[in-house]
Amino acid sequence: MGKTIYERSAELHKWTRGKIEVRSKMPLSTRDDLSVAYTPGVAEPCRIIAKNEDAVYDYTWKGNSVAVVTDGTAVLGLGDIGPKAGLPVMEGKSILFKKFADIDAVPICLDTKDPKEIISIVKAIAPTFGGINLEDISAPRCVEIERALINELDIPVFHDDQHGTAIVVAAAMINAVKVVQKQISDLTVVVSGTGAAGSAIIKMLDNLGVKEIYAFNINGIITQEDYDQYDFLTQELSWITNYSDERLSLSEAMSKADAFVGVSAPNVVTPEMVKSMKRDPIIFAMANPEPEITYEEGKAAGAKVMGTGRSDYPNQINNVLAFPGLFRGALDCRATRITEEMKVAAAYGLASLVNDEDVNENYIIPSALDRKVAKVVAKVVAEKAREQGIARI
Amino acid sequence: MGKTIYERSAELHKWTRGKIEVRSKMPLSTRDDLSVAYTPGVAEPCRIIAKNEDAVYDYTWKGNSVAVVTDGTAVLGLGDIGPKAGLPVMEGKSILFKKFADIDAVPICLDTKDPKEIISIVKAIAPTFGGINLEDISAPRCVEIERALINELDIPVFHDDQHGTAIVVAAAMINAVKVVQKQISDLTVVVSGTGAAGSAIIKMLDNLGVKEIYAFNINGIITQEDYDQYDFLTQELSWITNYSDERLSLSEAMSKADAFVGVSAPNVVTPEMVKSMKRDPIIFAMANPEPEITYEEGKAAGAKVMGTGRSDYPNQINNVLAFPGLFRGALDCRATRITEEMKVAAAYGLASLVNDEDVNENYIIPSALDRKVAKVVAKVVAEKAREQGIARI
Repeated sequence: MGKTIYERSAELHKWTRGKIEVRSKMPLSTRDDLSVAYTPGVAEPCRIIAKNEDAVYDYTWKGNSVAVVTDGTAVLGLGDIGPKAGLPVMEGKSILFKKFADIDAVPICLDTKDPKEIISIVKAIAPTFGGINLEDISAPRCVEIERALINELDIPVFHDDQHGTAIVVAAAMINAVKVVQKQISDLTVVVSGTGAAGSAIIKMLDNLGVKEIYAFNINGIITQEDYDQYDFLTQELSWITNYSDERLSLSEAMSKADAFVGVSAPNVVTPEMVKSMKRDPIIFAMANPEPEITYEEGKAAGAKVMGTGRSDYPNQINNVLAFPGLFRGALDCRATRITEEMKVAAAYGLASLVNDEDVNENYIIPSALDRKVAKVVAKVVAEKAREQGIARI
Repeated sequence: MGKTIYERSAELHKWTRGKIEVRSKMPLSTRDDLSVAYTPGVAEPCRIIAKNEDAVYDYTWKGNSVAVVTDGTAVLGLGDIGPKAGLPVMEGKSILFKKFADIDAVPICLDTKDPKEIISIVKAIAPTFGGINLEDISAPRCVEIERALINELDIPVFHDDQHGTAIVVAAAMINAVKVVQKQISDLTVVVSGTGAAGSAIIKMLDNLGVKEIYAFNINGIITQEDYDQYDFLTQELSWITNYSDERLSLSEAMSKADAFVGVSAPNVVTPEMVKSMKRDPIIFAMANPEPEITYEEGKAAGAKVMGTGRSDYPNQINNVLAFPGLFRGALDCRATRITEEMKVAAAYGLASLVNDEDVNENYIIPSALDRKVAKVVAKVVAEKAREQGIARI
């Protein structure tokens, strides 16, 4: 009998005792090696940096290193499992950074859930790192934490669960509309889920110029009327969705929509809803591991383009397509932050990797294993940063 | 013209952009590799750790990783140069950990000098690491920080500037007395310098059973009489030094001493002082880069055994002889802390690497490049931890 992917993963993790190790880039075999890499020689790079702080990028690993920071409150679909149980995911993230962008990433799993404390800890550890990748922190705390850090630090801070997914969804949407021959600016999109990923997707679609977004969470559609009952993040979404303030059910909204984007729960979309949508429906059903509607059901109900989070169906929306290249680009030009414009540039760069001649309903997004992706994304991101005047080299 | 060690070090650091990188221990070439190392497979080790916290040692890098934490307040002999300028030293420490003990160490340079904040940050990042190596934090703050962390964490916490040096000095003293045919318990020792290293050396010599210690700092000899004027650390030293509460000058103390240990300032010891010492003086002059008395002057004045911090003279007192093996031993047995007894065991283990037949005035301590050292130190440290009931495996 074959072992499940879970059994194989547990066995391999136990065998290797985790996934990352630290290696030396300098030789340490002779007494002279020691004197160059450590005392007394190391005093010289120290003195150089003490005189000119920016030299830290030239003489240390800082310019190529990222801290993958979590508090373990929203790990995968497993929820609040704590910092130790979140460590395997952060190590995984670290090796993806290395594999796809040659970035040296280190997990930092925090034994606190207090946003203020998390903010002050990340600020304090920042001298060591060239960027901060926030990961698997629950919403809306993740947004509060990310915003504070973006304001207070001079290195890129990026919550991947929000923007990584949003960038890849945006790229997929840019190519999906080519398949169905529509314009982004004509689209009405239903987004199910307004947590970390959902809220970022909504903002990204708004930045792309989508005409109308209906946003749903567990309490139904977001309206301006209910503004006072919302947390700050949902309040923000109410300004860029549902412009006529309609109190629609999901079925009603779907009948008005060109596209559906789900980062919510299994089976919330029925075949009837898909059938009621406008011509050539686009469905990105990314609830994990069970999507909002299965690939088979969606296609049978008439979805023209289906994307999921799964690698066993076409059009996998996988945020490994975004974060390595995005950080590579930001580090390469020493950007002080990652702007909305850089994220949009990343989405268009990612979309451009599928040629217009090749794009079709089963191929709107490159493979997660395509190593060219990070290179192209890095290039457009660094260009945009330089254009915006936030690059330091 | 040859380049200086400082020029060569700066050039090499700039060429390699620092000294460490993060590598993957798992393959990531195929879609299946991704599914095992990352989603969905990685959910399984996460679930296992969520159910049983201790499994984090089996399924992640935790059990083999150490954070090298500094605030940059006492870097080498350079003083308070800040966290960024301290990073080259911390990277150096990290590669020494790897080279000599196969430990994965990561620099964490903190942008705060507040001991309370440093304590709470290190507590918060502890889930990721199997041990904490505090480094280059100024005294007496370093002692306060280390003690708080030892009490609050269940992983080893060790301030290398204190205890690393102390362990190696102790080992050197254990062998030096063999050369001069004296007993540790008969020794009178003058220690110059009561900062991080000096205070730990004094405590270690006390733990070894030295008869009398005279401790000097910039204000002169430590006495009980001046107790109320001291910081907490100097107050502690006043209990284990200068038992007759004599107000001696350094010259007067030297004339009563068998050995001198200096971690203070250049040229505080004169040839006359050495000449006034008891039979076969032992001199460890470790001020950096200029010692309390040069090797040549010390020997000319009659020192039988001379040790310095320099690699270009015999008997280099180098704390790379202690910390890799000490942490290796503590990690191997998952010790919850590093006790005084483990440090004493490390000192005797280190001393034992020089055979009694081989020990002589120019060979009291193994070479810093001898890779057997960490192995032997690790073994005796783990044995002691198990004997003391603080090992978890």
